[in-house]
Amino acid sequence: MFFASDNWAGAHPKISAALAEHGGGFNAAYGAGEIDRAVERRFAEIFEHEVSVWFLPTGTAANSLAVASVGHVGGVAFAHPDAHIREDEGGAPEFLTAGMRVRPVPGPDGKMDAALLRETIKPFSPGAINQGRASAVSITQATEAGTVYSTSEIAGISNVCRDFDLPLHMDGSRFANAMVTLDCSPAEMTWRQGVDILSFGGTKNGCWCAEALIFFDPAMAAEMPYLRKRSGLLFSKNRFIAAQFLAYLEDGLWLDLARHANAMAAQLVAAIEAAPATRMAWACEANEVFAILPMAIYERIKTEGGHLYPWQVPAGSGLAVGEDETVVRMVTSFATEASEIARFAELLG
Amino acid sequence: MFFASDNWAGAHPKISAALAEHGGGFNAAYGAGEIDRAVERRFAEIFEHEVSVWFLPTGTAANSLAVASVGHVGGVAFAHPDAHIREDEGGAPEFLTAGMRVRPVPGPDGKMDAALLRETIKPFSPGAINQGRASAVSITQATEAGTVYSTSEIAGISNVCRDFDLPLHMDGSRFANAMVTLDCSPAEMTWRQGVDILSFGGTKNGCWCAEALIFFDPAMAAEMPYLRKRSGLLFSKNRFIAAQFLAYLEDGLWLDLARHANAMAAQLVAAIEAAPATRMAWACEANEVFAILPMAIYERIKTEGGHLYPWQVPAGSGLAVGEDETVVRMVTSFATEASEIARFAELLG
Amino acid sequence: MFFASDNWAGAHPKISAALAEHGGGFNAAYGAGEIDRAVERRFAEIFEHEVSVWFLPTGTAANSLAVASVGHVGGVAFAHPDAHIREDEGGAPEFLTAGMRVRPVPGPDGKMDAALLRETIKPFSPGAINQGRASAVSITQATEAGTVYSTSEIAGISNVCRDFDLPLHMDGSRFANAMVTLDCSPAEMTWRQGVDILSFGGTKNGCWCAEALIFFDPAMAAEMPYLRKRSGLLFSKNRFIAAQFLAYLEDGLWLDLARHANAMAAQLVAAIEAAPATRMAWACEANEVFAILPMAIYERIKTEGGHLYPWQVPAGSGLAVGEDETVVRMVTSFATEASEIARFAELLG
Amino acid sequence: MFFASDNWAGAHPKISAALAEHGGGFNAAYGAGEIDRAVERRFAEIFEHEVSVWFLPTGTAANSLAVASVGHVGGVAFAHPDAHIREDEGGAPEFLTAGMRVRPVPGPDGKMDAALLRETIKPFSPGAINQGRASAVSITQATEAGTVYSTSEIAGISNVCRDFDLPLHMDGSRFANAMVTLDCSPAEMTWRQGVDILSFGGTKNGCWCAEALIFFDPAMAAEMPYLRKRSGLLFSKNRFIAAQFLAYLEDGLWLDLARHANAMAAQLVAAIEAAPATRMAWACEANEVFAILPMAIYERIKTEGGHLYPWQVPAGSGLAVGEDETVVRMVTSFATEASEIARFAELLG
Repeated sequence: MFFASDNWAGAHPKISAALAEHGGGFNAAYGAGEIDRAVERRFAEIFEHEVSVWFLPTGTAANSLAVASVGHVGGVAFAHPDAHIREDEGGAPEFLTAGMRVRPVPGPDGKMDAALLRETIKPFSPGAINQGRASAVSITQATEAGTVYSTSEIAGISNVCRDFDLPLHMDGSRFANAMVTLDCSPAEMTWRQGVDILSFGGTKNGCWCAEALIFFDPAMAAEMPYLRKRSGLLFSKNRFIAAQFLAYLEDGLWLDLARHANAMAAQLVAAIEAAPATRMAWACEANEVFAILPMAIYERIKTEGGHLYPWQVPAGSGLAVGEDETVVRMVTSFATEASEIARFAELLG
Repeated sequence: MFFASDNWAGAHPKISAALAEHGGGFNAAYGAGEIDRAVERRFAEIFEHEVSVWFLPTGTAANSLAVASVGHVGGVAFAHPDAHIREDEGGAPEFLTAGMRVRPVPGPDGKMDAALLRETIKPFSPGAINQGRASAVSITQATEAGTVYSTSEIAGISNVCRDFDLPLHMDGSRFANAMVTLDCSPAEMTWRQGVDILSFGGTKNGCWCAEALIFFDPAMAAEMPYLRKRSGLLFSKNRFIAAQFLAYLEDGLWLDLARHANAMAAQLVAAIEAAPATRMAWACEANEVFAILPMAIYERIKTEGGHLYPWQVPAGSGLAVGEDETVVRMVTSFATEASEIARFAELLG
Repeated sequence: MFFASDNWAGAHPKISAALAEHGGGFNAAYGAGEIDRAVERRFAEIFEHEVSVWFLPTGTAANSLAVASVGHVGGVAFAHPDAHIREDEGGAPEFLTAGMRVRPVPGPDGKMDAALLRETIKPFSPGAINQGRASAVSITQATEAGTVYSTSEIAGISNVCRDFDLPLHMDGSRFANAMVTLDCSPAEMTWRQGVDILSFGGTKNGCWCAEALIFFDPAMAAEMPYLRKRSGLLFSKNRFIAAQFLAYLEDGLWLDLARHANAMAAQLVAAIEAAPATRMAWACEANEVFAILPMAIYERIKTEGGHLYPWQVPAGSGLAVGEDETVVRMVTSFATEASEIARFAELLG
Repeated sequence: MFFASDNWAGAHPKISAALAEHGGGFNAAYGAGEIDRAVERRFAEIFEHEVSVWFLPTGTAANSLAVASVGHVGGVAFAHPDAHIREDEGGAPEFLTAGMRVRPVPGPDGKMDAALLRETIKPFSPGAINQGRASAVSITQATEAGTVYSTSEIAGISNVCRDFDLPLHMDGSRFANAMVTLDCSPAEMTWRQGVDILSFGGTKNGCWCAEALIFFDPAMAAEMPYLRKRSGLLFSKNRFIAAQFLAYLEDGLWLDLARHANAMAAQLVAAIEAAPATRMAWACEANEVFAILPMAIYERIKTEGGHLYPWQVPAGSGLAVGEDETVVRMVTSFATEASEIARFAELLG
């Protein structure tokens, strides 16, 4: 019962096979090889748009350099208070941008409120020297609350961005899971709604280590070669990322894996809703499940070897959690097996 | 004839196989898994010493964080003028240390002169506010000139370090190649000569992406968890590095691969020395070959698809290079084939 | 009617006279002169405690280096959402600390809520790699809302700090104004309540440029010489700050000047409360007055050459502001004249 | 006998008087006041050119932000090995530029060799990702060796800059002293020879604290407002710098003060050349005197209260210094008195 995170899984056999397949021969280092360009072309096809693609070792690096690439001295980015870029990157966004700040813009269901975003940006655009200047807006898709922005919600955010002439970044560490939920094309979930930069994550969905920062306007990426190098983030054998992406994007593997993860999450939800003493904290829209469990059940699951984390009740959520209860987060992945869910369901008693 | 760099090669089949083998199952992320600890134990055995091991995506990151981990505000590191940490990291050492400087200490054959090192450190130890304070010394093994520090030369450098109470870092991006040359134990080439921190590189020698920063005194690594995260360098599926190292270090694979690369370099040397119009620029002691070729031969090799780089004549080397000649660098790897050398030899005519 | 800010005033004649007086002769540069030490001794007397004193050109620098001096990689400081260190330093705290973050902790009247502070710190102490680790707490005295923490309120905050072993910084850019309000000793308002580091501001209260960062535990200042230099903040003729402080602290000049500023603020308050159409937004406790004016009156004052700023209604303040009204901030200083207040009062009609 | 540095002197009475004179009344803060603009206009007159002027607290800050304002990620600046920007700023240039490097370009007499500069820049222009990219060239006038670039020497450097499209910065912490030596106009020593950015120093020549960064192309200063704020370097009462510059630039005070300092240096030189046991290390061209003294005389001067520093013999200078001798640096200033020189001369015996 490994529900701690989707990054506890390893890699899908096809990903590892691709690494074996591409291990021979010689290829220009530092991203100048033919296979690196092939992946860029593949992304262009998938997104139906010109793209500029930059491999990076981590989602933290991708999100930080996204902001850095369009950033300013004294710059400010805007994100949901629970966004990884604000909460879970250990200060990397501030450090890798040489001092930019991430200003929180709350909203229900882990999504920024577009009207509040507009109000929050105002004093920073045009910038004032002492306060700083707006540089970027960042949303997460699927969100840290396991919800998914609809395409019109994304458009709502990007409308605000456009009014302030700000680039919109999407942290897509669970991009495929959100795609599967919305059942739309990659283009529809990104640039057609005004997304300018995308952290495209493969790691959580079956790759070993495959993160790409994708710019829909290559001009925005002008500083990327130097930003990436300055932070020690430029792979020499760049093609080992390329090989993973080639397999990941072939024959829809990436969507198949996400579909499985989401389906497993749906089974978890069903089990939780079926059990008498447990209930969902809020709706699951991708592969993260937030539930309220009696402490006794939570402890029983842990004792039986279950991996899952207690979750802090979001401020202002109005969530009613009993004294003997706890909120937990459970994440499914391409590697989650139905038998684990079944065993979990039994323990809910 | 791929002699551009050892990072143009892919990965050895055993490395890719290890990735396939370890792809299943679940493992704690961010380096907290059992396999991560297994690699640490393996390194401790190989080095016959307690170690603290930190995986990183690039040698640039390893070298930079090595200095950052023992660094100071206003700190200064000392390295050979041709060292990667000074010449080839795109400013990452300066950026990832928040402004430290790398001060050059020349010496013949790509090695720092120990006496000159002592003189250079003096004004920085104890530190003066306007000038800065000595923080670390860094050597490269094998060096950027393709030479290898003898164990007594390393001890000579570390004696200077000890007198100023400075940690000694070794950039071992070609550590295995140097090991093979010296035919000594890992311990003899490192901590027994006073090395405190080692960038242990596997990438150039048959891994996909396997760099480890190794501390022989774990207390020195106290800041590493946060330094690594702040720079976006913490892998979530850390075990994909671990898997590579497990295979790399098993049954001496790493030394076999380096032995092959060095042997191929020796064949290159033999060919160059045998040909009437070509000669070595200086001695090859590992897997990098620096030679002087007539321009006509150089062009012929390029035309025939050879990959090799012209090299700038080091300042003060006294190297006599004719007007119609050029210095080139050629690097062999685990993947270099004898047939390539033979073809190269033919072209030397 | 110059109520824009207390930094619009120039310098008190005694301050300028001190500069003239100390202009002759020679003195060691960079803070090593006798007069520099004399100021340190004077501060020790005034605070009845050993102190380590560091002159800096700006309050921004003082606040930023306060946090940097006790900071960590991945560190997080905690401050009120309206605090200068979060809102008005243009990213300097993030930059000068190499990437630390300032996490907001709201509370009424411009003061942090101690209980909420405790809850906010918890997840950062002990630190988690992805989230970061608590490094410092910062309060402003007098606050950005023109209010003043009572000594027991300061103690309430420092109790929380002590429980997490965190240093407490006080931004005292209007320290003297708060002192006059509380009518207590410098010691009572600082270290006796658990304050560890103080940004002691003289500039807003009659100096030209006199900011000192004061540590009550000199060991905490160990990195200051290098931090100050690394940021270009080390004056060569340090004694020109020293000369200002000598005059400022002599015969209670600093408190006389603050008393005047506060008295002028009180007259402003009286005028606002007396006029039929205007009212205070909230209580004035030092030299900043926040009032609600009808737009017509606001415009009239502007037309008549009044300098004052509209102020954003603080989120969650519950302040009732009519559609035809505006909130304004007015700041008095040592140089404010009663005649200005009288003229202002007339315009309130 | 205060020859330690020109920053040991205080301020000229006219500078202090100006501070007293401008202390009254109200003025917009942060450089938006009328007096701030008046100084900018004055600089434009003096330099016969449009200028953009930025006050800063220190020469370190001015030099660092000069490079930052035209800098790049992965950027490299070029300066003489003995330049302040490389040797004496405690890492501020590296830190305040977020990781740029300063590459040394030697040359005799403390001046960069133009031909060597060209060779050194080449590999960095156009930039390579791993090596970095050329961003700026910086010269010091007068130099750290007490010499002065002739206008044609400056033009020689700027010709190289132009060929690589690089801005040329001049560190003019002793700008007035060099002016007096060359007896040319400010324009002739700067933009007419291709200087783009000037650190104009007043502090060492009779001001308390007056440093200005001057751009001859205001477009180059586009980032300055935010760069200055991000580093805590924006004065609130900016006019206290303005007041000093107004007096400094009035009726040629600045040149009179420099003329005096240089004349005092000339007297020192005469004394050293006249004495039998002492001699000049190299020529004095401004207000810094480098001499070779017998140790016995050096000790005698120290015993008699003389302030002067031993100086490290520059590498490769070929300077013949006896075992019983030492090189010393002596600096004169606006405040140096002839009686001090006379006393010094007596001690040379």
